[in-house]
Amino acid sequence: MKRIVLIRHGESQWNKENRFTGWTNVDLSEKGVQEAFEAGKTLKENGFTFEVAYTSYLKRAIKTLNNVLDAMDLDWIPVRKSWRLNEKHYGMLQGLNKAETAEKYGDEQVKLWRRSYDVEPLPLDENDPNSATKDSRYAGVPDEYIPRTEALKQCIERVMPYWECEIFPALKQHDDIVVVAHGNSLRGVVKHLKGISDNDIVGLNIPTATPYVFEFDDNLKLVKDYYLADPEVLKAKQQAVANQGKAK
Amino acid sequence: MKRIVLIRHGESQWNKENRFTGWTNVDLSEKGVQEAFEAGKTLKENGFTFEVAYTSYLKRAIKTLNNVLDAMDLDWIPVRKSWRLNEKHYGMLQGLNKAETAEKYGDEQVKLWRRSYDVEPLPLDENDPNSATKDSRYAGVPDEYIPRTEALKQCIERVMPYWECEIFPALKQHDDIVVVAHGNSLRGVVKHLKGISDNDIVGLNIPTATPYVFEFDDNLKLVKDYYLADPEVLKAKQQAVANQGKAK
Repeated sequence: MKRIVLIRHGESQWNKENRFTGWTNVDLSEKGVQEAFEAGKTLKENGFTFEVAYTSYLKRAIKTLNNVLDAMDLDWIPVRKSWRLNEKHYGMLQGLNKAETAEKYGDEQVKLWRRSYDVEPLPLDENDPNSATKDSRYAGVPDEYIPRTEALKQCIERVMPYWECEIFPALKQHDDIVVVAHGNSLRGVVKHLKGISDNDIVGLNIPTATPYVFEFDDNLKLVKDYYLADPEVLKAKQQAVANQGKAK
Repeated sequence: MKRIVLIRHGESQWNKENRFTGWTNVDLSEKGVQEAFEAGKTLKENGFTFEVAYTSYLKRAIKTLNNVLDAMDLDWIPVRKSWRLNEKHYGMLQGLNKAETAEKYGDEQVKLWRRSYDVEPLPLDENDPNSATKDSRYAGVPDEYIPRTEALKQCIERVMPYWECEIFPALKQHDDIVVVAHGNSLRGVVKHLKGISDNDIVGLNIPTATPYVFEFDDNLKLVKDYYLADPEVLKAKQQAVANQGKAK
């Protein structure tokens, strides 16, 4: 049996403040660090180990991974990072409070920006100091690959080449892989693995810092998938994610 | 100009308790975490950046590196880890208190074990639960490469192939490299770079979490080396390291 475990990063400072984050490089909250460490402990207690880890270029994912590996005593394994695993780029919404944006534009418009498959927010100004085009960490990325805004569709289209070329083929060589990324970049992976439709994927809420296990047979055919979590805790976490962005 | 910055890990739990650590996988102390973060801040304030990082398989070095990169906003760069950068293996001394060992065997014998170039302590029993031969992190290392004890000479002989094959050649491709490792594995690198004799290298005390900068010209010839630190702070840190292991 082979396994890939997907983990969405723990609570960030801006999840807490209910702001659109996207490619903004926000740190984990204290709760987020704790969640990540707990996820690692749960994995270890359930006999999981990993041979290689993947994460994004954003520190809330990198630190979640570092804490998971620390709790599992696996901080020595190879870690591979790619900007392709970054969160969906939220364009000019990045930095805005979700509830205030909902009040101003209405729940429906915000839901469209957050949850439609192919409607992207207006782009972030390239002269904005937070534009990824100004950030040295993306200096090695061809300019035309760097998003200014993304719908879920575009986010998934930039994640999948990395999945196809790097992560999934690594399963031939390794039995256990962990991927720590973001709500929307992970939606892309789950959509692909489970054949979920464009309409249905927008309703999939992946809870923070909860190991989502995918088991494969030796031909790399998906056998089953499940969250490694107490069902009640899981439900509460999923509801919390679904409620973000509603006007208070 | 090209640069390699060497950093010895911050204070560990066992530095604090004055115990022989070697390959025992001890965590950083709170002070060690802070030292590492400060080293990163100093590097950033002095305009340093890195394109790739190297560290050992031991968590006190990995966490020092993570904190340095966090402070520099460089947590996204590639990090390469090797058991070859691990601390000198202290054999059966691992876990013993340095001052008590000095009382029992005398300052001279302990100094010989700690500071002679080619006298190794008695080996750690292979059935000891802390033997590296029992640790899954070294499962990928040929058994005959895994030390049971080491003199500084043997430690250096196992570090240098990694330096020669991986770290130094990377300087052709990259301008700025950071290596976070251990007192004795870094002695090996400094000995090689500066042509220090077997006798003199044992007296070289590298302070914890202090960036040690090596500048090279475009032909990778060493031009100069210096610590990036306040001279008084540096002196106090070097003295503290030199004093470890004396009977109280």
